[in-house]
Amino acid sequence: MYREAYHFPLERYISNENFKIFREYVKDIPTPILLIDVEKIRYKYRELARSLPMAKIYYAVKANPRDEVVTMLAEEGSNFDIASRYELDQMLRHNISPDRLSYGNTIKKRSDIEYFYSKGVRMFATDSENDLINIAELAPGSRIMFRILTEGTGADWPLSRKFGSHSDVIYYLILQAKELGLVPWGVSFHVGSQQRDIGQWDDAIARCKYLFDAASEEGIELRMINLGGGFPASYVDPTYDVDEYAKEILRFIQEDFGENIPDLIIEPGRSLVADAGVIVSEIINISRKSKNNLYLWVYLDVGKFGGMIETIDESIKFPICFDKDGLSEEIILAGPTCDSMDILYEHYKYHMPETCLPGERVYIFTTGAYTQSYSSVNFNGFPPLRVQILPPEIHI
Amino acid sequence: MYREAYHFPLERYISNENFKIFREYVKDIPTPILLIDVEKIRYKYRELARSLPMAKIYYAVKANPRDEVVTMLAEEGSNFDIASRYELDQMLRHNISPDRLSYGNTIKKRSDIEYFYSKGVRMFATDSENDLINIAELAPGSRIMFRILTEGTGADWPLSRKFGSHSDVIYYLILQAKELGLVPWGVSFHVGSQQRDIGQWDDAIARCKYLFDAASEEGIELRMINLGGGFPASYVDPTYDVDEYAKEILRFIQEDFGENIPDLIIEPGRSLVADAGVIVSEIINISRKSKNNLYLWVYLDVGKFGGMIETIDESIKFPICFDKDGLSEEIILAGPTCDSMDILYEHYKYHMPETCLPGERVYIFTTGAYTQSYSSVNFNGFPPLRVQILPPEIHI
Repeated sequence: MYREAYHFPLERYISNENFKIFREYVKDIPTPILLIDVEKIRYKYRELARSLPMAKIYYAVKANPRDEVVTMLAEEGSNFDIASRYELDQMLRHNISPDRLSYGNTIKKRSDIEYFYSKGVRMFATDSENDLINIAELAPGSRIMFRILTEGTGADWPLSRKFGSHSDVIYYLILQAKELGLVPWGVSFHVGSQQRDIGQWDDAIARCKYLFDAASEEGIELRMINLGGGFPASYVDPTYDVDEYAKEILRFIQEDFGENIPDLIIEPGRSLVADAGVIVSEIINISRKSKNNLYLWVYLDVGKFGGMIETIDESIKFPICFDKDGLSEEIILAGPTCDSMDILYEHYKYHMPETCLPGERVYIFTTGAYTQSYSSVNFNGFPPLRVQILPPEIHI
Repeated sequence: MYREAYHFPLERYISNENFKIFREYVKDIPTPILLIDVEKIRYKYRELARSLPMAKIYYAVKANPRDEVVTMLAEEGSNFDIASRYELDQMLRHNISPDRLSYGNTIKKRSDIEYFYSKGVRMFATDSENDLINIAELAPGSRIMFRILTEGTGADWPLSRKFGSHSDVIYYLILQAKELGLVPWGVSFHVGSQQRDIGQWDDAIARCKYLFDAASEEGIELRMINLGGGFPASYVDPTYDVDEYAKEILRFIQEDFGENIPDLIIEPGRSLVADAGVIVSEIINISRKSKNNLYLWVYLDVGKFGGMIETIDESIKFPICFDKDGLSEEIILAGPTCDSMDILYEHYKYHMPETCLPGERVYIFTTGAYTQSYSSVNFNGFPPLRVQILPPEIHI
């Protein structure tokens, strides 16, 4: 028996057979390393496309910007949501045409707008007057998506008020966009990443409807809703599956828009790539800090600054499997750096079999999104998390 | 009048004259960028060496691992506290001899211990039995520093319970080290980074004394205390100056140890380098998110994942100066990425002159420590924070 560990079944994340093969495949690869199963991402993409056939998919590149992921999705016909000029350069390097790109970042310099426009991008998101005026000047005639503020309640990686503005401001921007010679194109929102409360979409869609109607009264016909991301991956806490999300979201849209359903786009990131990654790590040390401590401290060779930054505030709870079986005890998990903040989980208690020893391996599932690209460039001298793409015959 | 901004005087951080020269020097350098004044670090090093002449200084390389900083401090006679084999490689590349190094990270693999020993390092820190046994096997005869747990109360970047063990465990480890053929050498602690309560050292030194006495009764004469770091830099909240720290810490030691003062080492990081760095950033956008919002949102081109990770929980409050004068209002400060967590300060309100505009520059002081090396490798496609060393005639 080569596995088992936490108080959840490993089978939720990988079949016994596949895990056996995977474990054998990685056994001589030095840790820490992130393994990516590109074929699983392809499967997830197709599944989502089937569930929401009326929505165009714009993959949120920031979730996992590996070239192998981007080129495979380009092959599959995906469009791309990009966050910076650097991501634009990457897309152009792969000959992805600018009409398949959406520049979703509302925070952009004048020079960024100029750069995007010069490369052929004609759709921009905005949420403020300053930005709108810049777009009108530097990307004349472009289509504008207006980002409304949502609160992100119910999301594991909550959305703050950083993006979007209230409907009152947005309404004014829609009118102003037209005056400035831009094309008011639609409304976008984001309900928060790893959003487990489907009802959040209902609220946001209702606000879109309000803005569509209000704009229409001024002779402006909006035609698109960007439903954002938020579709969940399989972390520790349970979620509905993508079909359930799709069905409910469609119902919300039909309730508000009836037969006149606008063009829909979605920007999945996490939900496509997270499940396709496993970080293989090693237990560096196990220690009991006082004679009568309740908990063991377990130190791994990957931590908050080596790719697991989403453990900030213990927001994202990754499924972690140890390489032993048997009775388990509660532990505190920490990373390898000399930084006191480099703790993964202290309040939420993971379980580890009592027989585990330093030097043994640990498998951290659902780590394909928002891990490698966040790694520190050389904190404590450690290099960023390495990544390896699995051969097509190895599945996770 | 080309500056002023926050509700603290800029003169606390830089003279008017120096700021004028600095501002002129950087005006054509694209943002974001971190400028480092190596001569200021030299000055800080000498100041500390003067204040605590009985303590050997081990610079904590992780605070700012730039080669220019390391080589200057090596010239000055500093020793080095290193956190990983990668930092060891860097020291050896600069011909810093292994007897000037302390491997302060208690979290190390067997292969790390072997590697350090093979390169000539003979002093190791530990806080657990597993680690001690590894050191005995792979670095026989080495000197051992035992790390005790402190709670870090009063520190702006608090120390968790991640490092060190309680005295009861440490006492047992001291005896065991001798049995294993190692040389119990001393006790180390760390009161927490940016520790503004000097009294914290008193407590920790008293625990050292207890362990020195207890070991002595078993015929083991400990001879060194590693006082760690924790000496503060000049952020927004006021602190005592280094002389005050030195005087008090010496008094605590004399109270406990009388005439028999042990060898002392200190591991300053932040206090040597933080004040020597300024990040120059640009305001990307300023927006009001609803008609009756109290606060403006101000977006900079540097954020949490581009070098300012110490704004997590708003722990470290960097002095931020805008390039305008006049009446100011309260703002929320955020970074440039599409990540909702990339907010610098939302609860602690900074002030910005009302006349500030997007495209103008912002100067973030006291950013020489724990910034660049923490930057994400390519989150949202953004490259890590760039660094430039100032010529010796430019002072900050």
